Amino acid sequence: MSSTQDIDALIDMMAKLPGLGPRSARRAVLHLIRKRALLLTPLADTMQTVAATARECLNCGNIGTADICDICTANKRANGEICVVEDVSDLWAMERSGVFHGRYHVLGGTLSALDAIGPQELRIPRLIDRVATEEVTEVILALNATIDGQTTAHYIADQLEGQVTLTSLAQGVPIGGELDYLDDGTITAAMLARKKL
Amino acid sequence: MSSTQDIDALIDMMAKLPGLGPRSARRAVLHLIRKRALLLTPLADTMQTVAATARECLNCGNIGTADICDICTANKRANGEICVVEDVSDLWAMERSGVFHGRYHVLGGTLSALDAIGPQELRIPRLIDRVATEEVTEVILALNATIDGQTTAHYIADQLEGQVTLTSLAQGVPIGGELDYLDDGTITAAMLARKKL
Repeated sequence: MSSTQDIDALIDMMAKLPGLGPRSARRAVLHLIRKRALLLTPLADTMQTVAATARECLNCGNIGTADICDICTANKRANGEICVVEDVSDLWAMERSGVFHGRYHVLGGTLSALDAIGPQELRIPRLIDRVATEEVTEVILALNATIDGQTTAHYIADQLEGQVTLTSLAQGVPIGGELDYLDDGTITAAMLARKKL
Repeated sequence: MSSTQDIDALIDMMAKLPGLGPRSARRAVLHLIRKRALLLTPLADTMQTVAATARECLNCGNIGTADICDICTANKRANGEICVVEDVSDLWAMERSGVFHGRYHVLGGTLSALDAIGPQELRIPRLIDRVATEEVTEVILALNATIDGQTTAHYIADQLEGQVTLTSLAQGVPIGGELDYLDDGTITAAMLARKKL
């Protein structure tokens, strides 16, 4: 072998990350070794810190560094709205848009008969609990527009019916989207939900 | 912000790696946090180790964990052949092929008038030194088939002429290559270097 065990091990680990393969992992590792003081050491240190501190919020399932996350502890986010998402990455996407000012609930996946994932495997009982105990006025079901996502939304809607206002994200043409490149389902949804100018 | 400072910092650092962008860095970091014991902690530990131990071989410029790398210290690789490459990644590519059993010399780039990179900025004086002091019979110039790579090869060939056998990699149709997809230069080179069957 040309490189030593540790360098090879580092390349192997990096190659397993989503988005990286063996070739890009080798490039990344060479880049890191060359910029050792600037990149490799700080990256290793930050990884150690995150490994030691990151945890799931006991209330909403968000990832943070405390038992209860920043959003759940922020008083100004207690506006009665809970946005239900499948995954922490969806929560991050929603936060980047800056459009939502309430709290979240991360399910941790979707119901799936095939994978034997029922309500107990997700954070659904905890959501029902929150609606009953927190002062919740609206639950926004921001699940992915997939079959599993929509099945899960329907299940949650059934469970919470009558207790709280239930809404879901609008479906239609994405901003900047060209009709020619959209699938039939999106065009149908946009047409059925058309609005008066 | 939805996530905490350390997690954001980790995403920012990962996003700067070649081959990763902000979106794939977020996916990678979530993946790492979820598989903390299995991936994040070992990755952080290995990075620490590599940051502390990786160094350039004083003889050939390869990256290893000792002052003189494994290849330069291996007696069975002292067959009188030195393969000159631009970069450590080229050395790794050559080692993966398993075709070369001699030693290497990593230049660390190519001569470039535009970027003011002369022989002193590369590891060229050290190569001339090695040819004079080690028992070298053949220097294989395995530089990239770019203008800068070939300029550098010509310069080195001039310097070493008469002292040692100089060779370069054959140019032609790559294995699995289809003529229709090859550039004119490659087809011309392959035709001029055609071989009797």
